[in-house]
Amino acid sequence: MSYQIAVLAGDGIGPEVMAEARKVLKATEERFALSIEYSEYDVGGAAIDKHGCPLPDATLKGCEASDAILFGSVGGPKWEHLAPNDQPERGALLPLRGHFELFCNMRPAKLHAGLEHMSPLRSDISSRGFDVLCVRELTSGIYFGKPKGRQGEGEDEQAFDTMRYSRKEIRRIAKIAFETAQGRRKKVTSVDKANVLACSVLWREVVEDVAKDFPDVELEHIYIDNATMQLLRRPDEFDVMLCSNLFGDIISDEIAMLTGSMGLLSSISMNSSGFGLYEPAGGSAPDIAGQGIANPVAQILSAALLLRHSLKQEQAATAIEAAVGKALSDGYLTGELLASDQRHQAKSTSEMGDYIAQLI
Amino acid sequence: MSYQIAVLAGDGIGPEVMAEARKVLKATEERFALSIEYSEYDVGGAAIDKHGCPLPDATLKGCEASDAILFGSVGGPKWEHLAPNDQPERGALLPLRGHFELFCNMRPAKLHAGLEHMSPLRSDISSRGFDVLCVRELTSGIYFGKPKGRQGEGEDEQAFDTMRYSRKEIRRIAKIAFETAQGRRKKVTSVDKANVLACSVLWREVVEDVAKDFPDVELEHIYIDNATMQLLRRPDEFDVMLCSNLFGDIISDEIAMLTGSMGLLSSISMNSSGFGLYEPAGGSAPDIAGQGIANPVAQILSAALLLRHSLKQEQAATAIEAAVGKALSDGYLTGELLASDQRHQAKSTSEMGDYIAQLI
Ligand SMILES: CC(C)[C@H](C(=O)O)[C@@H](O)C(=O)O
Ligand SMILES: CC(C)[C@H](C(=O)O)[C@@H](O)C(=O)O
Repeated sequence: MSYQIAVLAGDGIGPEVMAEARKVLKATEERFALSIEYSEYDVGGAAIDKHGCPLPDATLKGCEASDAILFGSVGGPKWEHLAPNDQPERGALLPLRGHFELFCNMRPAKLHAGLEHMSPLRSDISSRGFDVLCVRELTSGIYFGKPKGRQGEGEDEQAFDTMRYSRKEIRRIAKIAFETAQGRRKKVTSVDKANVLACSVLWREVVEDVAKDFPDVELEHIYIDNATMQLLRRPDEFDVMLCSNLFGDIISDEIAMLTGSMGLLSSISMNSSGFGLYEPAGGSAPDIAGQGIANPVAQILSAALLLRHSLKQEQAATAIEAAVGKALSDGYLTGELLASDQRHQAKSTSEMGDYIAQLI
Repeated sequence: MSYQIAVLAGDGIGPEVMAEARKVLKATEERFALSIEYSEYDVGGAAIDKHGCPLPDATLKGCEASDAILFGSVGGPKWEHLAPNDQPERGALLPLRGHFELFCNMRPAKLHAGLEHMSPLRSDISSRGFDVLCVRELTSGIYFGKPKGRQGEGEDEQAFDTMRYSRKEIRRIAKIAFETAQGRRKKVTSVDKANVLACSVLWREVVEDVAKDFPDVELEHIYIDNATMQLLRRPDEFDVMLCSNLFGDIISDEIAMLTGSMGLLSSISMNSSGFGLYEPAGGSAPDIAGQGIANPVAQILSAALLLRHSLKQEQAATAIEAAVGKALSDGYLTGELLASDQRHQAKSTSEMGDYIAQLI
């Protein structure tokens, strides 16, 4: 069996960290006798510079012909003057999500043992640890709802966006949240704003209905404003957080920052046939691009998740995760994870990749 | 000159903390020879129980006949089974905001000297202190946008909400943010999601335009997801945060929680003629209601803000704020602000009110 992976490294630190993920994938292929073919495609700002648009047809076609997409990151100051629709993030990520109907986004945020001091939370809170998974609906809600636009003139000119959810859209993402919670701590916290939004009222109804099929999973509802607060006081009490598109955008970033180590976090975006896009959660970090100091771990873990979820290569995925775990506990850390007086011990991007590949 | 204040104590701890605010107001009236008349009206769950609806006509009429509203808090488990529209929060607060066009909501969140340990943030972050003011648009956006509702049947049934902003709605709240920043640290951070929302693109345009009239104020734009994150790492770098209705709901709660002392925070909701609703930021806290342990400071500070902004009694407002400051630095604290081994020193709700009143 031979697999096809579309590699979209993108902008900023994307290409650097992708190179390390490729090293690790190569070692994994050898050890597990996998046959994987990689095709590289331009995306984001890099694609704007070369082809005039952030998601060229060739890239989309290449992804269609693949089993999964390994994505780096897109965006940077160079393209910020462009109209929102033409910018790398909106012009590449949103169409990819829409085109492949990647409705299910999962962003785990776990405080790694030994890295509690990285969390911006008070030590008595962070020392309790936490392990939260944000399950975010990714192809509907106010991101894609129609109508969206402008009308009127002068000071009366209005802009409008539509938040829209159907029962079936809510049901399919809620199901995944409950199924995933069964393999974890069996708790789903559904985030909404049912005291204001009609979409949230329907959201609650459907989530309650889905919950009936999962009597072993505890369900609680929380308003988005309160969720943002409670995560600061008692992050350890959350397990799976089920969110609509917009609320998931906010919650997933908040929990990522609560770990204080965004360079370790990956994000999965999947459709119902197992096709997915795998990417680091941290963004393109243009400020540190090209210096060889970016943390490649999130990109490497994205590759592991790709192996697990889209290629069903559980053993290979576990091997990568174990190697990453060992590297971190061996003290292999990039600079941003070290206190300033320890930074002389920082490993470079490629040292991290080499070490993890060699552990496979 | 005689003033008229509508007092809406509401549910939970509302009546208890309101009683203390009344004590302090009485002392202030005496010292500054003010003549204020108070009329009490039912609101929220209390009004549902007595009159069958959370915002009876008599309450609305009473507010119309007043110079300002001193609001306690509404809501509690007793009314949570009701349909969203009939619940105390949505059924009272939103109509009051809409009816009086209280478009401007200001929620200050300041880490009080000596109370840094209350913040859930890591001590090296909280020790730098912070003083953030959320200026939130309160009568438009997705809260009030039409259409809002449901359509279709079965699994295809959809719910929808409309986020809508006009140039003039954005302009009037942006102006207030910039004016307020001039009296503070001269920085406005405008929070949006311009990479996804048409409303946010218009929001940015108008905010940039308003900024031209305030060359002494620095303007930065930040996406809501990133704002949620950056507040955790560097809260001290924010001054005024300008937000739409929904994003302001989230940001104001996040910054309130970052202080760790919600019982000290008030919220102003004003219209363009100076009429306003003044309330504690913390909510009705039904779990501690009736025990005499709730912190009345936020309610007392709400009264001070009412004196300043709606009655233009700056001296009286400052006197209350000074008395509160002195009480806190004298170690007059309610239990939730004390470490568990210090709780035997906790002051009761009425001890706090008595002490502050006597300091006036
Ligand atoms: C770039 C942006 C459109 C995107 C989003 O809002 O979904 C990003 O913030 C994310 O979370 O992947
Ligand atoms: C009760 C609710 C409708 C309200 C809001 O969302 O505005 C509250 O959270 C607030 O911030 O005042």
